[in-house]
Amino acid sequence: MRGCPPARYAGCVHQPPADATGRPAVPNHMSPDEFRRHGHAVVERIARYMEEVRDLPVLSRDRPGDVAARLPAHAPERPEPFSVLLDDLDRVVVPGLTHWQHPRFFGYFPANASGPAILGDFVSSGLAVQGMLWQTSPACTEVETRVLDWLVDLLDLPGAFRSTSTGGGVIQDTASSATLCALVAARERATGMRSREHGNPGGLVAYTSTEAHSSVEKAMIVAGLGTAQLRLVPTDDARRLDPAALAALVAEDRAAGRTPCFVCATVGTTSTGAIDPVPQIAEITASAGAWLHVDAAWAGPAGLCPELRHLLAGVERADSYCFNPHKWMLVNFDCDCFWVRDRRALVGALSILPEYLRNEATDAGRVIDYRDWHVPLGRRFRALKLWWTIRWYGAEGLRSHVREGVRLNARLAAALAADDRLEVLGDSPLPLLCVRHRAGDEATRTMRERINASGEAFLTHCRTRGRGTDGAGHEWIRVAIGGTATTEADVDRLGARLREEALLAG
Amino acid sequence: MRGCPPARYAGCVHQPPADATGRPAVPNHMSPDEFRRHGHAVVERIARYMEEVRDLPVLSRDRPGDVAARLPAHAPERPEPFSVLLDDLDRVVVPGLTHWQHPRFFGYFPANASGPAILGDFVSSGLAVQGMLWQTSPACTEVETRVLDWLVDLLDLPGAFRSTSTGGGVIQDTASSATLCALVAARERATGMRSREHGNPGGLVAYTSTEAHSSVEKAMIVAGLGTAQLRLVPTDDARRLDPAALAALVAEDRAAGRTPCFVCATVGTTSTGAIDPVPQIAEITASAGAWLHVDAAWAGPAGLCPELRHLLAGVERADSYCFNPHKWMLVNFDCDCFWVRDRRALVGALSILPEYLRNEATDAGRVIDYRDWHVPLGRRFRALKLWWTIRWYGAEGLRSHVREGVRLNARLAAALAADDRLEVLGDSPLPLLCVRHRAGDEATRTMRERINASGEAFLTHCRTRGRGTDGAGHEWIRVAIGGTATTEADVDRLGARLREEALLAG
Repeated sequence: MRGCPPARYAGCVHQPPADATGRPAVPNHMSPDEFRRHGHAVVERIARYMEEVRDLPVLSRDRPGDVAARLPAHAPERPEPFSVLLDDLDRVVVPGLTHWQHPRFFGYFPANASGPAILGDFVSSGLAVQGMLWQTSPACTEVETRVLDWLVDLLDLPGAFRSTSTGGGVIQDTASSATLCALVAARERATGMRSREHGNPGGLVAYTSTEAHSSVEKAMIVAGLGTAQLRLVPTDDARRLDPAALAALVAEDRAAGRTPCFVCATVGTTSTGAIDPVPQIAEITASAGAWLHVDAAWAGPAGLCPELRHLLAGVERADSYCFNPHKWMLVNFDCDCFWVRDRRALVGALSILPEYLRNEATDAGRVIDYRDWHVPLGRRFRALKLWWTIRWYGAEGLRSHVREGVRLNARLAAALAADDRLEVLGDSPLPLLCVRHRAGDEATRTMRERINASGEAFLTHCRTRGRGTDGAGHEWIRVAIGGTATTEADVDRLGARLREEALLAG
Repeated sequence: MRGCPPARYAGCVHQPPADATGRPAVPNHMSPDEFRRHGHAVVERIARYMEEVRDLPVLSRDRPGDVAARLPAHAPERPEPFSVLLDDLDRVVVPGLTHWQHPRFFGYFPANASGPAILGDFVSSGLAVQGMLWQTSPACTEVETRVLDWLVDLLDLPGAFRSTSTGGGVIQDTASSATLCALVAARERATGMRSREHGNPGGLVAYTSTEAHSSVEKAMIVAGLGTAQLRLVPTDDARRLDPAALAALVAEDRAAGRTPCFVCATVGTTSTGAIDPVPQIAEITASAGAWLHVDAAWAGPAGLCPELRHLLAGVERADSYCFNPHKWMLVNFDCDCFWVRDRRALVGALSILPEYLRNEATDAGRVIDYRDWHVPLGRRFRALKLWWTIRWYGAEGLRSHVREGVRLNARLAAALAADDRLEVLGDSPLPLLCVRHRAGDEATRTMRERINASGEAFLTHCRTRGRGTDGAGHEWIRVAIGGTATTEADVDRLGARLREEALLAG
């Protein structure tokens, strides 16, 4: 497989081929003027996509292998013109997209994009700095720190989360990564920083509800604690973690000599948007000496609006907290905001300082080096898109986006509740509702599959108990509202379609 | 801190304020036409940055707190015009940047950006799809799979890494994350998939050289194995992992009843670009039944060029391999390509399938769901920028970029070696050389600090042994060549400056 022996490197320096003028051939770098020309074409193409997406089928109709079949088996040897790359968006890519920005994408959670966020991200790519250390671009660190401090105020988060207090915020890619970092910090705190060196000692246990996101389980795997040490706490009738059950499990573990180290409460569960009773959970967690992480990945922006803040009650006692502006706060993926109450606990868990990263500012301890706040070393200037989005909309614009989602959700819930074929589940005023056909799972599934196949809207599902039902429960259609482009007319159209399909399905 | 009680959600639905026409006020979304106008302005701004960056001081002159002081303490309540956002790039951001795209940025490793990559990334932001599952955008998965298969050919990687064989490739953010995933997969393989459930059983040990990247140590912490279980294997005179020392440590651990589970070899170390003897390491690793990960984060593109491929000898025996196109292959940050020989080992370690992510394509097992190939659940369409970069340059353009870096490095090494005040260390023909003043560390540090303070170039440092010296060794100036915009004239200018400073420093 490999050619000449590694013994003598010097002979392997390649003499570049000369072109007709005798100069060495250099790569075909795109000049600033070419960048202008092609860049303007891309702006037009994206704007056209924004205009057209409403008329495309929401769920891609490609079958497995269809996209790959439109691609050559081998990379091109020679450069290709930019126009061909651009044309291939239409030929290869767009038919293979499930359009998350379609106004009738109601699946999973919305992935809000917006003009200022897309352009802020474009600037980040264009400046192409890497912010692993304060020194490697002070602006990349300080804009992030400042904007995350802004959000502490906007969301009415505890003052200890401010960088000027004991804590601080950092942008991560996703809530999965934030949860992992919180768990690792919790593990280190529980072991007096010994597991960093000696590994997980065993006997550490963690808690979350049966309705919590799968990322908690994944974090347990990655962090070497193991899923068997994760207690899935039962929920009440409204799918909220049952504090009495948590207290009982904690007591049982402590009696058995195990150490509760981490509790993850959810504000806005993925299946139904249920909101765990954080104040009671915080009380139990504090008594147990464990770390409380609150995952509000989707529901977090509710904190912008005074009339919704009660949904986040108890967050003031969290050791760490995260939410994703890339879900419901108009910042395109990826952007998860993660705060800790005690930055020393997080940095102490994750910090390593090799010689080649040492520098005066770091040694003096006067700066934040965000590489110690997450798993990756390098980092994009993600704060740009968050900063621009907050400024373009203003706090009042962000609030109005949240309120519009809440309003449309209530409107749809009322329309569906009027149909006695349908059962509606709304675990909070936030824009996620679940609906099922009273005739059973098969009718519910048929409704969803027919709507998805039509391309008119996209809906995903969950399985949970309805009110007062036991066991594995039912299959439900989830309707997650809050897309950037979703209007009242889109929600009304979905409502009408769901009622039509309910009639057809029995 | 929180307002009304959570008992009754229904009363908390906000009635949106009406505007003058009586319609509810909606957020100030950027229309497609506004996006066109502002997008074109951003294209111009980025193009101007590309033109101007050469004349800016490479290292930011801001002191800690300077950027933050240019930002208001609170987020704006009202929307701000786009022109103000754009102007603030000049006022707030640019002075606070260390310019990684400056042609005389020679610090760390280069962070190659290029026109096609920046525009591909812009398209990714503009389409704003999220590729956690095949179904959530088939193109996001299949373009990635196909392009990573292309790279197996282009880099002459083992056929088992192809998606059509037993393995496959995935894009991760950084090599740190890839190393963590490799370690977790190794841990699961070593425990027969039991540590997923039961946690790290203890007794597992891992190996890498004293010159390896700090991310291996960080992965040991995160994965709950602990740094004390990482054997830092001594290196030879050329800073390459010493296979005999590795074999001895493995034997010692096995004799003590411990289980070697993971070996990380480096092709192109961060300090000096040293290349571990992977064939011998692979032999020892295989005998021990451990997982071999090869980290070629920076040096990987050498595999594009037949005359350099011998540097990657032994990779054909790796269980996993990663390199970063965002370092030296013209794809802007973040883009790490990670391959495994046996995708079942990786997916088996990281997969979790909650009901709300189930879908027909996944259940049928006919597709790749990349969320099982890394820590995050959600993911950007990163493959677009990689696909566009490979096509814009063509394989020959990528090779010519690599060869130009190698040529400029050899040219600088020759110029510096001619100065008898200087000692030059080049551990491979790849474009990273280390240079020191023979008068000692203080003279070397003075040279570096004076050049960095001048803004003319940016250099970082490392500490390692020179030829035939013992102990902690010396401080060296690292010169990493290979930036997208770096020319012969830039390298010559650095060479002249280094020699001038050497004279002044004694």
